[in-house]
Amino acid sequence: MSPSVVAPETLAAVQQLYGEQSHLIDEGHARDWALTFTTDGEFVSPSYPAPVTGTDALTAFAERFAADARARGEVTRHVLTNLFVRSAGERHATVQAYLQIVTTPRGEPSRLVRQTTITDDLVQCGDGWRIRRRVVRRDDQPQ
Amino acid sequence: MSPSVVAPETLAAVQQLYGEQSHLIDEGHARDWALTFTTDGEFVSPSYPAPVTGTDALTAFAERFAADARARGEVTRHVLTNLFVRSAGERHATVQAYLQIVTTPRGEPSRLVRQTTITDDLVQCGDGWRIRRRVVRRDDQPQ
Amino acid sequence: MSPSVVAPETLAAVQQLYGEQSHLIDEGHARDWALTFTTDGEFVSPSYPAPVTGTDALTAFAERFAADARARGEVTRHVLTNLFVRSAGERHATVQAYLQIVTTPRGEPSRLVRQTTITDDLVQCGDGWRIRRRVVRRDDQPQ
Repeated sequence: MSPSVVAPETLAAVQQLYGEQSHLIDEGHARDWALTFTTDGEFVSPSYPAPVTGTDALTAFAERFAADARARGEVTRHVLTNLFVRSAGERHATVQAYLQIVTTPRGEPSRLVRQTTITDDLVQCGDGWRIRRRVVRRDDQPQ
Repeated sequence: MSPSVVAPETLAAVQQLYGEQSHLIDEGHARDWALTFTTDGEFVSPSYPAPVTGTDALTAFAERFAADARARGEVTRHVLTNLFVRSAGERHATVQAYLQIVTTPRGEPSRLVRQTTITDDLVQCGDGWRIRRRVVRRDDQPQ
Repeated sequence: MSPSVVAPETLAAVQQLYGEQSHLIDEGHARDWALTFTTDGEFVSPSYPAPVTGTDALTAFAERFAADARARGEVTRHVLTNLFVRSAGERHATVQAYLQIVTTPRGEPSRLVRQTTITDDLVQCGDGWRIRRRVVRRDDQPQ
């Protein structure tokens, strides 16, 4: 076992994609978040009854996420760590990372709500890497 | 929307700056932490009554931070995630990241105290990137 | 003080090593985790009575870690942040980072159990960087 060798240019581009993505959904830029996925991108999570597929559905999903947090009077963040590019070719890559949900009610301490692992299939779309498919696993629902 | 393209050399230098910075303040190297800012660097946070400006004031700020933690008998860490280089030219860059405050009283569990977002203006100073201005937003004090 | 300058290729390789390492132990790949250390690698932590040395002992250590979590009915993760390559030559490197232990009982919220700092000596082994010696410091046991 030796860690996958990935070209610095590829790793940098992937790190920037993940560096930006959480800020987009957390600050309410729903459509820009959706566009970090391919136009037929899929988001598969046990937190939601069915996969969310395609730019419009992903945008609506992110808008609901922001509206729900506002309705609860909370700020919610997606904290990304342990980014690992498992494999990367010219056109396809696979990425694994931890994604925490951290929520903060107004005037109160922050709280780690949920620890998840994401496994993403990426494709190079000419103007950059996008996520073709994300699968979320929740630590509170081990398989 | 496609993630900002940043040269691997620039991203590496910025990652190293942020990789080092928290360890400096958390381990009591107050002046070295202050020197991650420009000599006229500004630190703007709602946690403090006024902006902190310049190497000497930033050093005193970091010394107070360490003294306060010692007085409380706690170890306090700045946990940095979701680093994103929003833009980077030859001389200037803008960076956004999450910064958590995690504190641990002696013999007790660790505790996530505060979730914040930092937005930093950086300048290339010849010997490396430094922070010209940091603005901190606290999730418990949404704007 | 200016942040250490590290070649993007070296930083990328080190980031991939740390990106992968936690996933290996957290998903029960005990031997692969042990192989992120050199064959004579040492793991020194105040959480355990004696240093753990060498591939076989490190493998057994990781197997026990997984078995203990299973026995408690919990999922445990090693959340790595604040990665800093303090120095890097052609053959040797020193790395510092924060490593949190986050645990999630089935059906319950996740919990930050422990905040630690790791200081690692790395060597370039031809097929990649490996850890020669890891020293763990726990925030709840300040020195």
